[in-house]
Amino acid sequence: MKIAIPIFDRVTALDAIGPYEVLSRLPGAELKFVGFEAGPVKTDNRMLSLNAEVALEDFAEPDILVFPGGFGTRALMKDERMLDWVRHVHERSDWTTSVCTGSLVLGAAGLLRGLEATTHWASLHVLEQLGAAPTKRRVVEQGKIVTAAGVSSGIDMALRLAGHVAGDQVAQAIQLGIEYDPQPPYDSGSPDKASPDVIALVRRAEEAEARGAAAAA
Amino acid sequence: MKIAIPIFDRVTALDAIGPYEVLSRLPGAELKFVGFEAGPVKTDNRMLSLNAEVALEDFAEPDILVFPGGFGTRALMKDERMLDWVRHVHERSDWTTSVCTGSLVLGAAGLLRGLEATTHWASLHVLEQLGAAPTKRRVVEQGKIVTAAGVSSGIDMALRLAGHVAGDQVAQAIQLGIEYDPQPPYDSGSPDKASPDVIALVRRAEEAEARGAAAAA
Repeated sequence: MKIAIPIFDRVTALDAIGPYEVLSRLPGAELKFVGFEAGPVKTDNRMLSLNAEVALEDFAEPDILVFPGGFGTRALMKDERMLDWVRHVHERSDWTTSVCTGSLVLGAAGLLRGLEATTHWASLHVLEQLGAAPTKRRVVEQGKIVTAAGVSSGIDMALRLAGHVAGDQVAQAIQLGIEYDPQPPYDSGSPDKASPDVIALVRRAEEAEARGAAAAA
Repeated sequence: MKIAIPIFDRVTALDAIGPYEVLSRLPGAELKFVGFEAGPVKTDNRMLSLNAEVALEDFAEPDILVFPGGFGTRALMKDERMLDWVRHVHERSDWTTSVCTGSLVLGAAGLLRGLEATTHWASLHVLEQLGAAPTKRRVVEQGKIVTAAGVSSGIDMALRLAGHVAGDQVAQAIQLGIEYDPQPPYDSGSPDKASPDVIALVRRAEEAEARGAAAAA
C-alpha cells in the first residue's frame, strides 16, 4: 500500500502528520513524504522543517494521496508541475484525499468540479470558485475523493480511510494505538460553536499570516 | 515564551507535532525542536525525519518543555546527558510537560516521584517503577508538571496549557484555528472502550515494534 504525502514550503505540519500517524500504521504501508525535491521543507510558521524523502516524480503512482494544507497551497494552485503530478496520481490512485487547504490544490487541478468538498472553514468560499460545492461536514467522501476540514480533521479522515482500506478492526486498533479518545478542554473547534470574539481573533491572525506569507513570497 | 520540544531517534511524530501545532500559535511563541545535535532525526517507523534546529545545551532555559514519546524513550531513560538536560530545564521552567512515553524520561530524571502521572496506556506500569502514581486521566496536572496519555492526547494537553498561559479566549482561538472539533469514526480510543480483540491487536503490534527497535539498537 503506497501512500504519498506531498510537503512544500509553508505546509501546516499537523495536516500532514495526523494522517501520517494513522496511515503509517496500516499493515504493509509504504508511506513517503514527497516534495519538489528531496530535502528539508519549512512549515508555515518557520519553526519546523520536515524532510521530503523523494521528488514528486519519483513516487508518482501511490495508492493513496493525502494532500495537506497550509499557506503554501496558494502558490501550488498555480504551479503546473504540482498540478500535473496531482492529475497523474489521481488517474491511478485508489484514494485521492486532502486535509485543510490541500483541497484547494485538488480543486485547482480540476478534480473537484461538481463534487461536494470541504477545506478549512475560513477558505470554504475558494472551493466554490473552483467549481466544487462546499459543505461544512468534517470529512466529505465523493467516490474515491475524500476531503477533510481544517488541520486536525485529517486524523478523523485517515481513520475512516483506514477502515475502508483495512477494515474496522484494524482502524480501531490504530485509534487505540494513538490513544485517540479526544477530550478538548473547550468546545470552540468549529465556527458554529466558537464565540464571535474568538472567530474574529482567528480571522485577524489568518489575515496577518496571509499578508506575511505574501510579503515573503 | 520559549518552548523546547526534544526530538530523538524513534520519536513518535504526532506526540511532538500535536503540541507544536497548538503552542506555536501562542502570541510571542519561540518554539524550537532540540536534539542531541542539530539535524535530522528519524521517527519510530523510519518513514519520516524531522529536523532538530539546535542541540539540547543551546536551548537549555525554555519556559515550557514538552517531552514527546516513542520507542526511543527507552534508551533516553538511561542517557545521562538527556536526563541532566531535563533536570536543568525543569529547575527553571514554568511548565514541564510530556506526551505518551515522554513521561518515562521525566520519571527517569526523578521528576515524578510521589506525583500522579500518565503515559501511553500500555506503559502505565513503568511509571510505577519510577516512583509515580499512574492514573488513567488523559491529562494529569501536578503543579507545573503536566503529563498526557498516548500520542494524540498532546493536543488536549497543549490546549489546556495554552489556556493557563494565555487565557481561555486565546486557547479557544487556537482550537478554532486548527479546527479541533474531533469526530472519530469509532469509539475505541482507550482500553476502557476498545474491544478485547482490538486491545490484543495493539499489544501484539507494540511488542513486535519493541522487538524490532531492540534488535536495531
